[in-house]
Amino acid sequence: MSTAAFPGTFDPFSVGHYDIVQRALLLFDSLIVAIGVNVEKKTLYTVGERKANIESLFAHDPRVSVQAYEGLTVDFCRKAGVTHIVRGVRSSADFAFELAAAQTNKAMLPEVDTVLLPALPEWAHVSSTIIRDILKNGGNAAQFLPTGNF
Amino acid sequence: MSTAAFPGTFDPFSVGHYDIVQRALLLFDSLIVAIGVNVEKKTLYTVGERKANIESLFAHDPRVSVQAYEGLTVDFCRKAGVTHIVRGVRSSADFAFELAAAQTNKAMLPEVDTVLLPALPEWAHVSSTIIRDILKNGGNAAQFLPTGNF
Amino acid sequence: MSTAAFPGTFDPFSVGHYDIVQRALLLFDSLIVAIGVNVEKKTLYTVGERKANIESLFAHDPRVSVQAYEGLTVDFCRKAGVTHIVRGVRSSADFAFELAAAQTNKAMLPEVDTVLLPALPEWAHVSSTIIRDILKNGGNAAQFLPTGNF
Amino acid sequence: MSTAAFPGTFDPFSVGHYDIVQRALLLFDSLIVAIGVNVEKKTLYTVGERKANIESLFAHDPRVSVQAYEGLTVDFCRKAGVTHIVRGVRSSADFAFELAAAQTNKAMLPEVDTVLLPALPEWAHVSSTIIRDILKNGGNAAQFLPTGNF
Amino acid sequence: MSTAAFPGTFDPFSVGHYDIVQRALLLFDSLIVAIGVNVEKKTLYTVGERKANIESLFAHDPRVSVQAYEGLTVDFCRKAGVTHIVRGVRSSADFAFELAAAQTNKAMLPEVDTVLLPALPEWAHVSSTIIRDILKNGGNAAQFLPTGNF
Amino acid sequence: MSTAAFPGTFDPFSVGHYDIVQRALLLFDSLIVAIGVNVEKKTLYTVGERKANIESLFAHDPRVSVQAYEGLTVDFCRKAGVTHIVRGVRSSADFAFELAAAQTNKAMLPEVDTVLLPALPEWAHVSSTIIRDILKNGGNAAQFLPTGNF
Repeated sequence: MSTAAFPGTFDPFSVGHYDIVQRALLLFDSLIVAIGVNVEKKTLYTVGERKANIESLFAHDPRVSVQAYEGLTVDFCRKAGVTHIVRGVRSSADFAFELAAAQTNKAMLPEVDTVLLPALPEWAHVSSTIIRDILKNGGNAAQFLPTGNF
Repeated sequence: MSTAAFPGTFDPFSVGHYDIVQRALLLFDSLIVAIGVNVEKKTLYTVGERKANIESLFAHDPRVSVQAYEGLTVDFCRKAGVTHIVRGVRSSADFAFELAAAQTNKAMLPEVDTVLLPALPEWAHVSSTIIRDILKNGGNAAQFLPTGNF
Repeated sequence: MSTAAFPGTFDPFSVGHYDIVQRALLLFDSLIVAIGVNVEKKTLYTVGERKANIESLFAHDPRVSVQAYEGLTVDFCRKAGVTHIVRGVRSSADFAFELAAAQTNKAMLPEVDTVLLPALPEWAHVSSTIIRDILKNGGNAAQFLPTGNF
Repeated sequence: MSTAAFPGTFDPFSVGHYDIVQRALLLFDSLIVAIGVNVEKKTLYTVGERKANIESLFAHDPRVSVQAYEGLTVDFCRKAGVTHIVRGVRSSADFAFELAAAQTNKAMLPEVDTVLLPALPEWAHVSSTIIRDILKNGGNAAQFLPTGNF
Repeated sequence: MSTAAFPGTFDPFSVGHYDIVQRALLLFDSLIVAIGVNVEKKTLYTVGERKANIESLFAHDPRVSVQAYEGLTVDFCRKAGVTHIVRGVRSSADFAFELAAAQTNKAMLPEVDTVLLPALPEWAHVSSTIIRDILKNGGNAAQFLPTGNF
Repeated sequence: MSTAAFPGTFDPFSVGHYDIVQRALLLFDSLIVAIGVNVEKKTLYTVGERKANIESLFAHDPRVSVQAYEGLTVDFCRKAGVTHIVRGVRSSADFAFELAAAQTNKAMLPEVDTVLLPALPEWAHVSSTIIRDILKNGGNAAQFLPTGNF
C-alpha cells in the first residue's frame, strides 16, 4: 500500500495541480493533498476555503483526501504514514528548489522518497502566484483553474 | 500492473543508476532497464557486456529485467507495454533535458507518463561520462560503481 | 504602427533600462515606459518621482512616453493599445521568469507579443535592487544610473 | 527599413521556427532565413533541400527570403545589410547560449542588435535534434513540422 | 598578507558555512566572518547570539575573527582592509546571485576580488532558511549544525 | 606554499584565461597552467604552439609555469604536488559543470580543493570555441586574445 502526500499552499489549486494529482494516482494507492499552513503568510483564500474547494474537485475519487497541516512536511508525512512525497516541476528554477527540498527531507526522514512529475507544456507557465495576481486585479483566470474552481 | 522503462546508455551502470532502480521498485510492479543502442556512438563496453553486468546486479530480483533497444524510446515503450518512463535527475541542466524529453515523449505517446527521481546528494556529481574518463585513464572508479560492477 | 510597453517598477531606472529603451526604439514606432504600481510594495522613490525622472531622461525623444498603471500588465496593454511588450534579460534566472510571464500574458491577451532583449555584458549585473541597496546605505551608484538620474 | 536575419541550421525547419518567422514579421520589414552551412557537420537534409522547403513554406510572403551562408553569422549580416538578428528561445539553457552569442556578435558588429522571442509553450520542447531522431527511426514527426514540410 | 571577508546572515551558522571557513583558511592568512545586519529583516537569533556562537566555534583558531556590520559589504571590506570576499556556492541558482554580486562589488571596489568555493555534495542542500524552518517547528536540525552549535 | 593548477584545453588561451591567472596569483604562491591533452579531440593549435604561446605571455612572471598532461586532472595534480585547482566560471551552465567536476575530483583526491573565480562581465561571453570559430573563418578575434597572442 503506497500513499503519497502532495504538499503545497494551493492558494488557489490550479489546473497544473489538478494534472499532478491525476498522474500521481497512476503511481500510488492513495494520495493526500496536504495544505501547508503558515500563519505568517497572508493568503487569498482561507485554509477552509481551499480544503473545501479541493475536496469538491475530487469528491468522485475516494483515493484522494485533503488535509491541512502546520509545521514541517516531514513531520506531517511521519504522522500520516505516507510513503512518498509527490511534486510537479515546471522549470529548472523549480527543480533547483525541489532538489534541495527532497534531499533535506530524505536526510530527516529517510523512509519517505520524493517523486517529481514534469509539468505538461500547456501548464508549465501556470503558477498560483500568477493566478492570485489575476484574481486580485479582477481578471479572468478561468483557463488556469480546474472546472468548478474559484 | 504498472511497468516502468528506465532508458539510458549505461556505459557503464553507476551507483546513481543503481539507486534509481531501487527507488523505482517502490513505485512500479516491474522495471525494465532499457539499454538504448546507437550504432553511431562509440561506447566503452559492448551492449552484451552492459546487459550481462546489469542482469547480474539484479539477479536476485525477478521484478527487474534488462533489454537492449534501437530506435525511439517511445517505440520501445509501446512494444514493451510499459506504463511509465523513469529517469534520475541530478541537476538543473539534467532537468532541462528531461523536461523536453518527457514533453516530446508524451506528445508522441500520451498513455506513457514520465516520473523523475531526484538524485541523492552523494551521487549528484556521478556520471557515466566521468566514470568512463576515469576507467580509460586507468583510474580507480570503484566508489562510483555498484559492488560487483566493472 | 507598432507600440511597445516596457513594464517595470523602475525603482530606480538604471543604465540597463536606458539601454533597453534605446534598442527598443529601433524596433517600434513608439514606446511607453509603463511604471507598475503595487501599493503593497514599499519603494524608495514615489511613482511621481520615478515618472518625472524617466520623462526627463527622454525629454528629447517624442517617441517615448511614461505612464503609471495599477493592476495587470495585460489590462494596461489592452487599454493603451500596445502591440508588444519589451523586456531586458540579464541571466538565465531572469529568463525563466520572463518566459513564464510572456506565456501567461499571451494566454490572456494573444494579440500582444513579448520581445526580449539580451542585456549588454557591462550591464548584466546591474539591478534596481542593488542600486537601491547602495543608495539606502549612502553609497555612490552613479555608474549604474543614466546621466542626470537620481 | 529594418531587416532581420534568422540564422540556424534548420535541419529540418520546425513548427517552432515557423512561429518565430511569423512573429518576427510583426517587427521587421523583411526577414532572411539564413541557413548556416558547416561542411564538417553531417545533416539529414542537404542545404538545397532545406532551402527549397523553407522557400515553399513562405512562397506567399515576399518579405521572407532564404539564403545559405558559410562562415561567421556576423560576416553574413554585414554583407546582407541586416539590422537585427532574431532567435527563438525555449529554455534557460537556450538562453545562456543565446546571451553569449548575442554579446559576442555585438562585440564584433556593434550596429547589429539581437532580438529574442520566447517560444510558445506548445513548442517549447520541440527541437530539430528530436525531429531528426524521430525521422531517422521512421517515426511520425508531422506534429512538429509546418504543414507541407518533410 | 591576505585577509578574506566571509559575509552572510548566518541565522544560524551551518555545517556548510563551517566547511567554507575551513577551506578558506587554506587560501588566506586570516578570515573575518562578517555578519551582515539588516534591521528590517527579522532573524531567529540576535546578532549577539550569532556572533558568540561563531566565535566559540573558532575559539581555537586565532586566524578567524567575527564582526557584525551594517550597510554595504564593499564599505565593510574597505574599512576592514580585506583583500578578498569568499562565498560558498551550492547550486546554479546560488551562482547566478553570486556572479551578479561579485561583478557589482568589483565595479564598486576593484581592489577586492571574490572567490567562490563549491559546496561539498553532502552540504549542497543545507541552507539557513531550511534550518530555521526546522528549529521554528521544534524539529531536530543537529545534523545541519556544527557540533556545539544551537 | 600553495600551488594551483589551472587546467584547460586553451585552444587558444583567451583574455578570460589571462584574467583568471592574474587573479589566481593573488591567492597562490605559484600556478601551473595545465594543458589537458586529449588525442581524440582535434584542436586548432598543437600542444606545442599553445604551450609556447602561454609561456611567452607569462615570461615575466616566474610564479607561472606551463605543463601539458594526458589523463585525469587528479592524477596530474597528485604528481605535480598542487594544493588547489582553479577555474573561471562565466555562467550558470559553466557552474553546473564545474560543481560536478569539483565534487568528483574531491571524491578522488580529497587533499586538493577547487577554487572558482567568477568571470568579469566584459569576458563573460568569451569562449575558446567562439574564438576558434572566428579564427577558422578568417575573422578578427584580437579583442578576445591577450596582447601578443595568436
